[in-house]
Amino acid sequence: MFEYTLLATSGRARAGVLRTPHGDLPTPVFAPVGTQATVKTMTPRDLSELGATLVLANTYHLYLRPGSELVARMGGLHRFMGWSGPLLTDSGGYQVFSLKTLRKVDNDGVTFRSHLDGSTHRFTPEKVMAIQEELGPDIAVCLDECAPPLDRAYNEQATARTHVWAARCRASQRRTDQALFGIVQGGVFPDLREQSAHLITSLDFPGHAIGGLSVGESKEQTYATLDLLNDVLPKDKPRYLMGVGAAQDFFEAVARGVDMFDCVLPTRLARHGAALLKGRRLNLRNAQYAADESPIQEGCGCYTCQTFSRAYLRHLLAADEILGLHLLSLHNLHFLLDLMRRIRASILDSTFGQLAAAWQAAS
Amino acid sequence: MFEYTLLATSGRARAGVLRTPHGDLPTPVFAPVGTQATVKTMTPRDLSELGATLVLANTYHLYLRPGSELVARMGGLHRFMGWSGPLLTDSGGYQVFSLKTLRKVDNDGVTFRSHLDGSTHRFTPEKVMAIQEELGPDIAVCLDECAPPLDRAYNEQATARTHVWAARCRASQRRTDQALFGIVQGGVFPDLREQSAHLITSLDFPGHAIGGLSVGESKEQTYATLDLLNDVLPKDKPRYLMGVGAAQDFFEAVARGVDMFDCVLPTRLARHGAALLKGRRLNLRNAQYAADESPIQEGCGCYTCQTFSRAYLRHLLAADEILGLHLLSLHNLHFLLDLMRRIRASILDSTFGQLAAAWQAAS
Repeated sequence: MFEYTLLATSGRARAGVLRTPHGDLPTPVFAPVGTQATVKTMTPRDLSELGATLVLANTYHLYLRPGSELVARMGGLHRFMGWSGPLLTDSGGYQVFSLKTLRKVDNDGVTFRSHLDGSTHRFTPEKVMAIQEELGPDIAVCLDECAPPLDRAYNEQATARTHVWAARCRASQRRTDQALFGIVQGGVFPDLREQSAHLITSLDFPGHAIGGLSVGESKEQTYATLDLLNDVLPKDKPRYLMGVGAAQDFFEAVARGVDMFDCVLPTRLARHGAALLKGRRLNLRNAQYAADESPIQEGCGCYTCQTFSRAYLRHLLAADEILGLHLLSLHNLHFLLDLMRRIRASILDSTFGQLAAAWQAAS
Repeated sequence: MFEYTLLATSGRARAGVLRTPHGDLPTPVFAPVGTQATVKTMTPRDLSELGATLVLANTYHLYLRPGSELVARMGGLHRFMGWSGPLLTDSGGYQVFSLKTLRKVDNDGVTFRSHLDGSTHRFTPEKVMAIQEELGPDIAVCLDECAPPLDRAYNEQATARTHVWAARCRASQRRTDQALFGIVQGGVFPDLREQSAHLITSLDFPGHAIGGLSVGESKEQTYATLDLLNDVLPKDKPRYLMGVGAAQDFFEAVARGVDMFDCVLPTRLARHGAALLKGRRLNLRNAQYAADESPIQEGCGCYTCQTFSRAYLRHLLAADEILGLHLLSLHNLHFLLDLMRRIRASILDSTFGQLAAAWQAAS
């Protein structure tokens, strides 16, 4: 279980397959985010039709509502949300550490107040493992501390804490049908990243997540960190870059050995009326599209582009019709999932460099 | 074109087929309502999969936004909203007459203020025909005046006006690929209803709509009016009971010779968290369903019931997730569309009476 098979490389880019209890996961892979046990506006069959293979759900949100114990009683997250493919949960740490005024962290864990009702809760490594074991994803991650990427002192402390917590998560794991990924931290500091990677990989996790990137540092710093980690992280296990999902980042990160991605971007943009196009975004609320008979993108194979004009989509947004959010989410997810499929195919047939160059030229 | 073929009767209940430019329409039929050129939360392919055959759109709403002229430029309503089956528009009259403080009616037409921006507009029979010819549905209806059902004096005036306006609509019709239905008014007053039916049918429309019912009168009055109209309206043309869509009403009205229905109920109830069941409604926001593993209805063939528990649906509603509205709309539409299919099948095989009795007993 959770065997990662490397099928092909193109430079440092990797195409592989990760075995999970809910099916084989071709990598590199982009996971749509289903924060509250639903990828916003999408049914599981919509996701299957889009070719989504992996879905992420949020431990923090589901712990608070409807509660992980309830999800367990309902047969686990797969059954609860009707998704039969591989599932991934985050640790909840990122959300908790984002609750600036509502949390207090110590070496043992973090105490926080719910954003829903102000009630007080505590996450420790053991608690976060218990929650994820109740939720039942195929892949769980360790509780980590995500520090501001440019704060050296904070990152020294967070890296040390993340290591201790990773060991405690590893030790408290009970389920053998879930892969637990360790998370590497260290901000933009090469020595801390290297140290964190060595500490985390020493715990022999079946996969490694890269946290604390795309949270405020420069693109150059992101890419330099990925360059460094590609050399340190074991090549026989998958690498998961958390929270990243822009098209250009796919190329840059895959070229640096990353296998897995997740991001709320496609559905969040849809809620703002924005559609993803190569190298740009289309704000469909703009009046200029009111009589535009063309689809979002000519040649796009998604249902939205095959069926509806920009004019109709703009009408739906102007009229506050939910269908508009659904159709834009569908297009945006297709855009990223389709791109990742093409990236994977290009690694398999050794044309990744050409695909990346062509994308760069057109963007 | 627009030929109505009566295939079978069961008592006064009728099963037939209405030919339209966008396909044959089996009757009796229930039309989901797509007020703003979308049945709320549903894609056209969702509707097709549910077996919807006819969709209603609102002249008033589409005239105001995005504008019927724009819809015409975009190729008409079918193309604009991606629905390739038969379409029906109302006249806009019902909405305008519901704008209590914002409208002024005279013998020539009605002046009103937009609920969107307060701008002033005027509907006359000719204007409403021009709008519907721009929108391009298969079936259009005449501008009518819908009076409070128990107000005798108002109904006398409204019936006379409705007749004059019907004649003007008929005279101003240009498109030959749209069926124009006349509308019978008259409130709960048998003599007025009979008089209105005679006047309207004398104009030789290809179908007849029954307006001004289910707007405040008793069920007995509704059914007595349908009894009366069944005798007066020609049997070789379809009868359309506007704005009615409760399951029990299907049985009562079909048993009195009605062929067509529309109602916002299934999608409106969904937005309130209510699911349709035989004889009752389930309020899925209630805490009692928080850990209920059963589907909305055991044995229901809809995607929602085949895939999700009440617990999951309640979670979606509690978490304000749009998917909850979609899945409830889908179930509610399935419930009514499936019921109407069973009613039609029972007329064809002469078991309508048994089906109606069994429904009554279980409700």
